Amino acid sequence: MISVAVAGASGYAGGELLRLLLGHPQVRIGSLTAGGNAGTRLGELHPHLGPLADRVLAQTSPDTLAGHDVVFLALPHGASAALAADLPDDTVVIDCGADFRLTDAEQWQAFYGSEHAGSWPYGLPELDARARRELNGAKRIAVPGCYPTAATLALAPAFAAGIAQPEDVVIVAASGTSGAGKGLKPHLLGAEVMGAMSPYGVGGGHRHTPEIEQNLTRVAEVPVTVSFTPTLAPMPRGILATCTAKVHPGVSANEVRAAYEKAYGTERFVQLLPEGQWPTTGAVLASNCVHVQVALDERVGRVIAVSAEDNLTKGTAGGAIQSMNLALGIPEETGLPTTGVAP
Amino acid sequence: MISVAVAGASGYAGGELLRLLLGHPQVRIGSLTAGGNAGTRLGELHPHLGPLADRVLAQTSPDTLAGHDVVFLALPHGASAALAADLPDDTVVIDCGADFRLTDAEQWQAFYGSEHAGSWPYGLPELDARARRELNGAKRIAVPGCYPTAATLALAPAFAAGIAQPEDVVIVAASGTSGAGKGLKPHLLGAEVMGAMSPYGVGGGHRHTPEIEQNLTRVAEVPVTVSFTPTLAPMPRGILATCTAKVHPGVSANEVRAAYEKAYGTERFVQLLPEGQWPTTGAVLASNCVHVQVALDERVGRVIAVSAEDNLTKGTAGGAIQSMNLALGIPEETGLPTTGVAP
Amino acid sequence: MISVAVAGASGYAGGELLRLLLGHPQVRIGSLTAGGNAGTRLGELHPHLGPLADRVLAQTSPDTLAGHDVVFLALPHGASAALAADLPDDTVVIDCGADFRLTDAEQWQAFYGSEHAGSWPYGLPELDARARRELNGAKRIAVPGCYPTAATLALAPAFAAGIAQPEDVVIVAASGTSGAGKGLKPHLLGAEVMGAMSPYGVGGGHRHTPEIEQNLTRVAEVPVTVSFTPTLAPMPRGILATCTAKVHPGVSANEVRAAYEKAYGTERFVQLLPEGQWPTTGAVLASNCVHVQVALDERVGRVIAVSAEDNLTKGTAGGAIQSMNLALGIPEETGLPTTGVAP
Amino acid sequence: MISVAVAGASGYAGGELLRLLLGHPQVRIGSLTAGGNAGTRLGELHPHLGPLADRVLAQTSPDTLAGHDVVFLALPHGASAALAADLPDDTVVIDCGADFRLTDAEQWQAFYGSEHAGSWPYGLPELDARARRELNGAKRIAVPGCYPTAATLALAPAFAAGIAQPEDVVIVAASGTSGAGKGLKPHLLGAEVMGAMSPYGVGGGHRHTPEIEQNLTRVAEVPVTVSFTPTLAPMPRGILATCTAKVHPGVSANEVRAAYEKAYGTERFVQLLPEGQWPTTGAVLASNCVHVQVALDERVGRVIAVSAEDNLTKGTAGGAIQSMNLALGIPEETGLPTTGVAP
Repeated sequence: MISVAVAGASGYAGGELLRLLLGHPQVRIGSLTAGGNAGTRLGELHPHLGPLADRVLAQTSPDTLAGHDVVFLALPHGASAALAADLPDDTVVIDCGADFRLTDAEQWQAFYGSEHAGSWPYGLPELDARARRELNGAKRIAVPGCYPTAATLALAPAFAAGIAQPEDVVIVAASGTSGAGKGLKPHLLGAEVMGAMSPYGVGGGHRHTPEIEQNLTRVAEVPVTVSFTPTLAPMPRGILATCTAKVHPGVSANEVRAAYEKAYGTERFVQLLPEGQWPTTGAVLASNCVHVQVALDERVGRVIAVSAEDNLTKGTAGGAIQSMNLALGIPEETGLPTTGVAP
Repeated sequence: MISVAVAGASGYAGGELLRLLLGHPQVRIGSLTAGGNAGTRLGELHPHLGPLADRVLAQTSPDTLAGHDVVFLALPHGASAALAADLPDDTVVIDCGADFRLTDAEQWQAFYGSEHAGSWPYGLPELDARARRELNGAKRIAVPGCYPTAATLALAPAFAAGIAQPEDVVIVAASGTSGAGKGLKPHLLGAEVMGAMSPYGVGGGHRHTPEIEQNLTRVAEVPVTVSFTPTLAPMPRGILATCTAKVHPGVSANEVRAAYEKAYGTERFVQLLPEGQWPTTGAVLASNCVHVQVALDERVGRVIAVSAEDNLTKGTAGGAIQSMNLALGIPEETGLPTTGVAP
Repeated sequence: MISVAVAGASGYAGGELLRLLLGHPQVRIGSLTAGGNAGTRLGELHPHLGPLADRVLAQTSPDTLAGHDVVFLALPHGASAALAADLPDDTVVIDCGADFRLTDAEQWQAFYGSEHAGSWPYGLPELDARARRELNGAKRIAVPGCYPTAATLALAPAFAAGIAQPEDVVIVAASGTSGAGKGLKPHLLGAEVMGAMSPYGVGGGHRHTPEIEQNLTRVAEVPVTVSFTPTLAPMPRGILATCTAKVHPGVSANEVRAAYEKAYGTERFVQLLPEGQWPTTGAVLASNCVHVQVALDERVGRVIAVSAEDNLTKGTAGGAIQSMNLALGIPEETGLPTTGVAP
Repeated sequence: MISVAVAGASGYAGGELLRLLLGHPQVRIGSLTAGGNAGTRLGELHPHLGPLADRVLAQTSPDTLAGHDVVFLALPHGASAALAADLPDDTVVIDCGADFRLTDAEQWQAFYGSEHAGSWPYGLPELDARARRELNGAKRIAVPGCYPTAATLALAPAFAAGIAQPEDVVIVAASGTSGAGKGLKPHLLGAEVMGAMSPYGVGGGHRHTPEIEQNLTRVAEVPVTVSFTPTLAPMPRGILATCTAKVHPGVSANEVRAAYEKAYGTERFVQLLPEGQWPTTGAVLASNCVHVQVALDERVGRVIAVSAEDNLTKGTAGGAIQSMNLALGIPEETGLPTTGVAP
């Protein structure tokens, strides 16, 4: 059995990690730690995790996390780097935060305003062959952001196939409010979010922008720039990413389709839907699958790709466990749900 | 492997059966049938069931259902009896409809207005020792209604312990709209149900009323009568049942607590929450667990018991599979989720 | 013009008062005050109140509230009494909080745990003839709680007509989350409340219990006791109160209907729906109307009355303005919406 | 008093027209007609419209609509043209459908597939000076589509000021499900839409695309092309339109801001929010106001403008009444709400 610790078990990402780890046949759940919630019974914080209800959260520290094969860090952005430095080199450390996602120190500085901690292998196996290769046997893994997972998977095939132009990419994504975390903020109150949609981070400032650009640039092999606008939708979970890029002159609908079929034909967790069927976040709730569909708008010369994911599952905790499986050399799909909960 | 067919695979109960059966390690999913949706690709109707997306629904008939170890009937009320009669005696037939739930022909006639088809072993193992015993090896099983499961589990311990009085039981339950099925009715449109609560079947007419009374009478061993009012809540799934009964004079809070601890101490799918923690449907979404809590209101001499369940999981499909496990003599909990999906 | 000040303008009740006062043809909106939000532009707190967006909140104090014909207090429970004492006797002071609702000092002490501040005329004109009479020309008014408004209007006719028995009243109500206010609490986060129902204050401890009993006792002229369980529903606004009482032997459905028609035949803001049509909170969103329906369940000898209201409108701010109109001797319905916003 | 008839009073647009007309001080509501719902009591279809509950719907026909100063047509697309031809020339006819919105017969043919009925003065007074001028005294008015209202108001100032480039406009909009109407379709069931977001009409096929292009082309005075993707959001009402266009080189944030201030500085129903505050549909629920905000993303050379409207109010019925006011020469804002209902 693989012994696993979760730091930040009190938050939404932590809770989702535990939900999935409970279903993982080769995992034994070890230390569960938190910051302000240390000392609390897990059943109070996550009443949906019945089998762990009587566990009490320890204080997050290198000591409480020691002695595990795998440590997941589900901490506020910026908190992972210091902690990770104190964990043994041969422990698999998987960071659900942003600290190690960006390879470019300048971009990090520009969007996060702190010193760059470095970068770790990027936990999106479907990005390209290199990604999966680097995750095999990795001891340190940076889990992608929830928006970058959705947006990258929607557009990467168009860039990998050389179909899309690298400028004028526009991405508008809607996220359930769990994506904003469990912190107490007035605009996240139920009465505020139910029945309402609103944008945030408009104008290019959202921190997931450079991460999306990094991914698309990597597959395009030329610099890709992105206008990215996230919006908050009245649902607990789910991201719907509507992504569009200009295509090179003469690209046909068949070429577009072929590029996506080639990219995802053998992927277990990214499903290109049959032509004409569009993704809905409802179909991927609690699933590790991302649904993708694509169309060519010939009038305006643009490809429109839409992806739906569960921001907490494939967008965070499921993606993290998928990477853990690769790191440990066990089948990639072990313990990960391929069905959603609907309706 | 157990070969399983599902009749009525296009509806919400059918979809939930398939979601759970996909996770059942000893099941092979055989025929999937429907009425008006025969001929349709399952992926169109249930996009969340990726692994079955390419299955095409057959027409429901004894022929298409033949040759399986187990047949689940997820049909409109009244449609099961005729079909069941044409299925082999040694096939395990599990009816998610109402046809075989009531033992009293008069009550059936009064609430359903048609001829009584008879009654089958009742698929609520937690009801009493007899229930679980009768399910062992059963070839015909009547799955309880979603409201009766929630309401019965909330109040049965109080009646089994002789604490509650059999008159003046009042139950008010709120259900997600999937409980009303997939039929197209104006009041079930999203724009109508979001942001709104409304009652229905008020005044004692709801067909689950005699089923709740039958269950509570069985454990109380005296006739129990119930005022039951269901309401429609703006959520896809979940039932919250608020149930109250007068207690006999002198009953103490400790006795109440003890009765519930005794009833559910060893049950895997019914969890009495720690004192002071109240159930929320959010914690049992997609889980086969029911959360129960109880309080004694000494001012008015009433016990108030609240249960939360997922109407499609423990309230229908999960309960059905739990009974299947018992019927087949495999561990009762096989393939059934004990964690919810939250937030 | 009537000059009106609102203390506590930053909260949900304050915001709803302002929404309605903006539509009141005889009102001039004067001071707007707050506690921690003093100094803030109203447009930041209530972006829906465009015409007042540039107003800046003053600090709540007798000075900032001085010089108005009417002062509304929309403050946390317990904060009104001290402030009210410092407002001039000839100012109409309307308290949306609980401080002056209960007439019985012992009940106050039992449920609120502090010293009783006294009681003011009760702002529910439809309760009985005395209520409306006392509001005429009143200088101090206690606005009813949101649940008591809904529950009282549902059951009062049955008690006024001597139809209902005073024991074994059971009320289960579902409320939108704005009823819990704008305070930052984890269980009120959008991700927690969407898709979930949960009870609270179970077992007779909710502070609205004695207020409901006080109202029903007043119309019944014998002591009425109530089992009251509130639940939180996944919607921003609205209360659906399902209320049931035993009827005296021999009471007929016609008598029940007649009692309700007599009670509400001429009321503008309480509408008894046509027989067979049940209330939905969706139909009274943003309206000052309460919809009521009633049925007799002869099997169990109970009347079931259901009411739907908007907790912020008729349940708080609309009810407050209706009382203001009576206090000032202007037509009771002035400035109050009789239509809902649907769907 | 102005006598007003509403054809199609049973639908969502019809219901919203009636809600607003009830609050219009100069209107007398005359004939209310429907197709399949003729003969039904309005209270059954629109329980929120208490004051009209006892009205019975007549059959839609020139006869039942005769004798009014104003006739609103809230009919399925394609049904207005024939009916309008039979209404007197001196009756003000206001079509909430699409029949008379497009000026280009070819575009009509391409997107609607039927013969072009012609075009009427376009009911968006804020579009440009000509729009308001043409509405003054008009006898025939085409009410804009809900998406075109939101998208046009978001981007028009950038085109009017010559700031935006006419190609590569991308619009992604989220709409509440009332925008899809009251027709019974499986994907509009509450259980399907709650908790889920999904796109539709992807790839340039949505019929509002040419209407948006027509509007922006009109203000830009060069042909503007648009990639438009609508999505369905889990809320009853509201549109959030995220709109982006490339700016000409050298355009500054100040210029952008100035263009929007100039466009909307004196508009009553379009509010440019203070810098840094972004629109939310929650703030314009039931209001005739549109909230707009804009930012310049200098990294990618794009202006991002976001608008929030209530699709049924400003997006349909409120916009229609605003145009009626102009047609009749009464103050444009008469009877139209400038506050939203929140939370």
